[in-house]
Formats: sequence, C-alpha cells, structure tokens
Amino acid sequence: MHDEPEVAVLRLGHRPGRDGRMTSHVGLTARALGADRVILGDNATGSAETIRDITDRFGGPFDVEVTSELKRVLRDWEGAVAHLTMYGLPVQDVQAEIRESHREEPLLVVVGAEKVSFDVYERADWNVGVTNQPHSEVAGLAVFLDRLFDGRELDREWEDAESVVVPQATGKKVESPE
Amino acid sequence: MHDEPEVAVLRLGHRPGRDGRMTSHVGLTARALGADRVILGDNATGSAETIRDITDRFGGPFDVEVTSELKRVLRDWEGAVAHLTMYGLPVQDVQAEIRESHREEPLLVVVGAEKVSFDVYERADWNVGVTNQPHSEVAGLAVFLDRLFDGRELDREWEDAESVVVPQATGKKVESPE
Repeated sequence: MHDEPEVAVLRLGHRPGRDGRMTSHVGLTARALGADRVILGDNATGSAETIRDITDRFGGPFDVEVTSELKRVLRDWEGAVAHLTMYGLPVQDVQAEIRESHREEPLLVVVGAEKVSFDVYERADWNVGVTNQPHSEVAGLAVFLDRLFDGRELDREWEDAESVVVPQATGKKVESPE
Repeated sequence: MHDEPEVAVLRLGHRPGRDGRMTSHVGLTARALGADRVILGDNATGSAETIRDITDRFGGPFDVEVTSELKRVLRDWEGAVAHLTMYGLPVQDVQAEIRESHREEPLLVVVGAEKVSFDVYERADWNVGVTNQPHSEVAGLAVFLDRLFDGRELDREWEDAESVVVPQATGKKVESPE
C-alpha cells in the first residue's frame, strides 16, 4: 500500500486450463487485500487479462506482471520472502516478525499451485502455514495479507475507478464517478 | 468449533464443471478455518467427495452435507444468516455484532458463486463485504471466518487424523499417529 515498502505476490506452478480461475483469484485477492503487484508466469495470460480488466474498472494502483522467469524473480528479489505452505510455521507465530521486516523492506509473498520445489522452501525467509491443513492458496493468501496489514487494507482508497460499490445493508449500489 | 453454537457454510450457485475447484476450496476453507459443516447442492458431489476425503485423512469433526434443497435450508435456518457479498457492509463494521450473535445462536454463512438472487440479500441478517472489491468467494470466506473466530480457529485440535503436519521452518514433515 502507499507509503510502505512494496508487497508483491508471486504465483508459482500455474497449469494452464486447470488453474485459470485459481490464478485469477490469487491476483484479485492480492489486489483487493493490499498487495501492490502480482507476478504471473507467461502461461497465465488469461488470468493476467482478468486482473487488469478488474483494475481498470475498479481502480488501482495495482500492477500485473507476466514473465517467463518466475524463478529468477524469486532468486533476485531484493527484500524478504514469505512462502505460504501448509508445511510451514503457524502464521500467528511469525506474523509479528514479518510485519516488522515489512516496515523496512519489500516483501515477496510466494503462492504455489500443486507441488513446489524444495529450493523455494530454502530461498524463503519464512515458510508460513495458514493452518497446517490442506485448503486453498487463495484462502491462505487472504488471511496472510489481512494479518500482515492488520486490517488497514480494508480501508484502502482506490484511484481512477470507473465503478465504485457503495456498501448497502441490503441490495446493490454501484456508482460511476465523473 | 467445540462448545460454541454451530457455524455452517452454505454454497449457492455452484455450476458443475466450471465451479468444481472453487466449491472444493470453499468447503476446505470452511473446514480449516473453524466452521463445523458445509452444505452443498446435489450437483456438487465431486467437491463433496474431495472435502470428505481430506476430512478422513486430516481429521475432524467436520460435516459435508449435500442437498437438493439449498434454498429451503436457507429459509428454514434457525439462527442468524451472514451473506458474503462485495455489495454488503464492511466486515470490519459488522464483525463485532456478528460475533456477539454467534455467542448465542448458530450462524449460517452464505457464499455465492456468480449471481445471487435478491431474496438471499433479504433473508440475510447481514450482507457482509470483505472489501467492496471483486475478488474471490474463497478469500472472502477465509477472512470472514478468521475474524469471526478472532484467530482462535488457528489453534484448533483435530480428531481422528491419519496424517498430521508438523510445522517446519524449512521442508515438510507429516506424521501418522497410531
């Protein structure tokens, strides 16, 4: 978010076809919950388009990057790396340390699809489990970001939105600013 | 969770094929993050099997119910109803009230897929937005449950697990209790 070191989300292991919606949801969750950027493999161009389209309509800033060099981004990242995995340390035990680190330097959050190779576990500064149960990389990312930003992300303002949802107790209200 | 009024998650609008993985992830997220039960339409039997299989392997209690009468479950629910929607009131504004209600009575959390009919908005005691941005019903459910249970769900103990993941700073460790 503004005035803070960058938080980028790196999506590993995307399988075209099978993972299209999951990868789109990873990117949309990254955007909605306070990350600055999502980095996708160049086999996930459909998801990239979906996320860019939502950003055009509902505002930013939020960047979508597509690369053939995901592993290089991870290797060369200048900052800290948190890898979300059900095998990692409980998020509630490491979140304070990660927040502390994020005050000083950029954070790369790595979200895998199926199998993640062991070098990712070794590269990460933290392997983080949002529970040690199998569930969803989208759910894990959402809880992780909400805890990283301590809820501040829910009050984020959006720039250049064509459509703005106005919260309602019942029903739907969408405005189009001039 | 134990010793508390039930929290059930109702999945509406499942489209076979297209929504299979999303519905599985809704159910697995419900299980991992403290809900007691997920209720799916009878066109989502594949997702039901996936969630039951994970519960068999990683423990419970957690119930998976399949019904041809989703709308009847919603109509006849004896307790409070929270419907997650990007058009709703900010979760940070209503979570205290929902927690308070859940101390007294069961809570049904309604998670839609694509379009949700207006009667659901009217039936709900709260229409709740985890941000007013489009992202993912899985992400919304995850943040909602983490906030409803205030993180207590992360310390939940599991019964009758065949496999138990032991948190590791690096790598994977899975044990099989006797």
